[in-house]
This record gives sequence, C-alpha cells and structure tokens, in this order.
Amino acid sequence: MSSYPANLIEALRAEPGLKLSERATQNPDWWPKDAPQDKKTAQKRMEEIAQPLSDLQERLFAASVQGQEAPSVLLILQGMDTSGKGGIVRHVLGMLDPQGVEHHAFKAPTAEESAHDFLWRITKHLPGRGKVGVFDRSHYEDVLIARVKELASPEVLDSRYTKIVDFEKQLVEQNIHPIKVMLHISKDEQYERLAERLDRPDKHWKYSPGDIDDRLLWEDYQQAYEIAVNRTDNKTAPWHVVPADQKWRARLCVAELLLDTLQRITVPWPEADFDVAAEKARLEATK
Amino acid sequence: MSSYPANLIEALRAEPGLKLSERATQNPDWWPKDAPQDKKTAQKRMEEIAQPLSDLQERLFAASVQGQEAPSVLLILQGMDTSGKGGIVRHVLGMLDPQGVEHHAFKAPTAEESAHDFLWRITKHLPGRGKVGVFDRSHYEDVLIARVKELASPEVLDSRYTKIVDFEKQLVEQNIHPIKVMLHISKDEQYERLAERLDRPDKHWKYSPGDIDDRLLWEDYQQAYEIAVNRTDNKTAPWHVVPADQKWRARLCVAELLLDTLQRITVPWPEADFDVAAEKARLEATK
Repeated sequence: MSSYPANLIEALRAEPGLKLSERATQNPDWWPKDAPQDKKTAQKRMEEIAQPLSDLQERLFAASVQGQEAPSVLLILQGMDTSGKGGIVRHVLGMLDPQGVEHHAFKAPTAEESAHDFLWRITKHLPGRGKVGVFDRSHYEDVLIARVKELASPEVLDSRYTKIVDFEKQLVEQNIHPIKVMLHISKDEQYERLAERLDRPDKHWKYSPGDIDDRLLWEDYQQAYEIAVNRTDNKTAPWHVVPADQKWRARLCVAELLLDTLQRITVPWPEADFDVAAEKARLEATK
Repeated sequence: MSSYPANLIEALRAEPGLKLSERATQNPDWWPKDAPQDKKTAQKRMEEIAQPLSDLQERLFAASVQGQEAPSVLLILQGMDTSGKGGIVRHVLGMLDPQGVEHHAFKAPTAEESAHDFLWRITKHLPGRGKVGVFDRSHYEDVLIARVKELASPEVLDSRYTKIVDFEKQLVEQNIHPIKVMLHISKDEQYERLAERLDRPDKHWKYSPGDIDDRLLWEDYQQAYEIAVNRTDNKTAPWHVVPADQKWRARLCVAELLLDTLQRITVPWPEADFDVAAEKARLEATK
C-alpha cells in the first residue's frame, strides 16, 4: 500500500493551539495527493482495507479468548448534531466482525449516572479485552454541553479537563487505546442536513427541536470544542479533527485511523496452550 | 422477489417428533428449486437482501429512539462446536448496522450466575427495544450440556423445558421475537473442521481439548438436542434446524429467517413528535 495514510493521519492531528475556524471542513488543501480524491476511489480503498481490518481485529479477539491481556481500541466520536457519528458506526465499524465490537451511545445522564462522578458511566462501558469499543458521544459531553449550558460551575468544569487527561492516561496503561475523533462540519452543511431531516418523513425520528437550540449556540459549542481539544490533546491520547462535510471523506479518515491503530497494537496469533500432536491423535481416534 | 423464502422457512421448521438423524446436514432434497443452489448465487442473494434488511432494522431502531415500545428480535444460535455460530454472526449479523445489534456469547456460568436461576443471566442480556439481539449459545445449554454431563438432577432438567417454554412465551408478550436456530452439522464435517483448526496455527485459538471430549459424546448431544427441540418447539417460539455442513447454505438460511422476522414485525416510521412546519421556520431563521 502507498504511504499516504501516515501523511493523512499526521494531517488529522490537532495542532497545538488549534483554531477550529481555520480547519477545513471539506476539500482540505493538505489532503495527500496519493489519497482517494473522490467518493468512488474512497469506496475502493475501503474495500481494499476491509480484509486487513478484519484480520487485525480477529487477532485481538483471539488473544483475549486465550485469556491474554489483549489490547483494546476505544473510538471516541464527538461532533455537532448531524456531523455523521451514526454513519461512521454503520459504514466503518460495520466493516468489523460484530463479535468484536462494543458500541455505546451516551445520552443525557440518568438519575443514577448523575449521582456518580462523570467518569463512572464511562468506565462501565469501556470495551473488554481484545474488543473495539465505540463511544457515540462520551465524557467530553461533560466539558462541551456542560460548558455551553453551564451545567457545572467554572471550577468543576476546569477540574474535568485534568481528570480526563489522567483518565485517558490510565486507559492506555490498561492497554485500551483511544482514538479521539472530532467530526468537524460547517454550519452551512448542518443546515443542509437538518433541512433534509425535516423534509423526509423517514428522517423525522433523527430530528429533535433541541438540535436548533444547540445550533443557535454554534459559536459557543465551537469554542467549547476548541478548549476541550486543546486541553486534552497529548501524545498518549491525541485528538484528530476530521473534515466531515463530505461523508465519504470522513468515513475514509476514520477507517484509516482505525487501521493505523490496529496495526500499531497488533499481537501475534496466540500459541496453542495444548499439545497439538497429542490432540491430532485424539481427533484421529474419533474418526 | 420470488416466493422461495416462504418455502425455505417452512422447510427449516422442526417437525413434531423431530429425529436429527433423519435431517439433512447438506444438499437437502427439500431445498426449494428457485433458491440459490451454490455459493456464488447465495452470495448474490445476500447482496440483494442487504438493503431491505438494513431498512427494516432502521425502522425498528427509529421507533425505539422515539420512545415507542418497538419490537426486538432475538436470534438464538445453538449447535455443536465448529457448527458455524461465529461465522453466522460475522457474515449475517455483519450485514446490519452495529448500532442496532446486541451480541452476547454465553460461556460456562460464572460463580455469580450459578448462584441464580438459570434464566437470570439470560434476562440480563435480552436485547433492548428496537434491537436485534444475538445469543451465541443460550439458556439451551442448561438442557444440553447440563443433560449430557449430568450437571443437574433429572427432575431439575425436566422442569427446565417447561420454564423455557413459559419464558419464551413471555418474551413474545414483551415484543421480543425469538428466532431459534440449531446449526445442524454431521460428525464427519466436524472432523474436517477440527482437523483444520489443529493444522493451522492461526486457528489454534479456536480449538480446545474439551471439543474432543464433547465429540466423544456426540450421540448423547444429538439426543439432548432432539429432546430440547421437541419439548420447546411451539408456534410462538418455533425451532429451525439449519443444514450447516455448507457454510454458504447455513448463512443464507439464517439471513432469510432474519429477513422474514423483520418483515413480519415491521413498524412504520415514527410520526414526528414536533410541529414540522414550525421547525422548518426555526431552521430558516438560523440561516
């Protein structure tokens, strides 16, 4: 395979002092020349990497079945309404074996969840060993919506960034490897997508009047994202800002991020924990 | 689409007084003439039904998001080691959106699970509303391995069949629709599959010496399956015996069963619970 994924992944990394208004939401000028330039080529590339993705996932799963402390992946998806989190799950995570995927969508906290620290419910849904976990929204909501809607005091909010950094450091120490993704869309693109949801009766269920309430706070959310990314980006648990106005592009980016992580943490097939020759003889005796 | 799926599904149904030794594990003579006759045609049919499967699943999911009491599906997969349960999950459930699938593989009960009634852990893993649940093994292990290995007294075993029938009746009343599948393989085919697992280092993790212990009890297991199917088959929660020596055939059968169930329980797109015109106006105002 060509060398573009490395360039792509580097380009997706949030730079220090990130300004979201300066990050492209479509046709980024830094897009690698040898990467797919359109939907059809991206589709072909996705088909190409389906098999390596699946093989790497099976190795993780195999290691966990044999009781090894197999690494896990945790894909954290954040983004404004309509940014395409669900589509990523369907089209990218859908490439993996469902046995190895653990998906959780975080909603407004329940009464029980609110009665605990904000990381309590997150810990409960961490992926098992050898699994690929996916969070559709996450602990970042507690510094995003919580900041914009003033659901916590400035002091509490402030303390959460540090807690998140520490928490994610512990994840990596536990061999759970986060891939933090912000799906970055423009306000214009959100308009188009919300309009489509309102136009099509089969999309009404995806719409909520609260989406407009949040849209009216667009700038506040962008600022909250900027602060969150800048305060929680680090080498151990880096942020990736994915241009998401074009769905094919966003899906390709996340697929490449997933492939890159799975390649980095890959484990060999587990050694047999039984005597292969002896078992072959036992099997022959049953013929 | 042609009418074969109805014939196929009828043919898969366990007949009263089922004798497993009389059921084909490959090339069944009752296989519908207009159904796919080989792997390639089956593959084409799977591609054909991927979209309807996905659409029907999205409707269920949509209904549950809007807080309706949406129906759920529960695919119960049973079969001897190597019968292909994992392959069904990967290739058939893999056709669905991971957001709508809840998969659970039941292993030997934990100490906590053993301290409860055998249905306790099953209840814990029932699919949420609008979800497609998949059980890789299930409460049936408590009348299969439990019977063969005498893990419970004859009286306790005997009472479990009735409890299972009542439990599954309640599931349907709760709008959870079971699809009970026994993947039926021959002893010869199991030999081939175990031999492959022993031959290939990348398959060793799928092998356990216990597989041969169970293989030595083949006839006992077949009998336990026969009794279980005969005592728990009924119109509300019917059993399907799927010929599983040919993987493409087994996968096609389960895909058709899933499609058939999703079609039977399908729900309309939920009505908007907001004023569409008013929301359109609100959206325009944000442009």
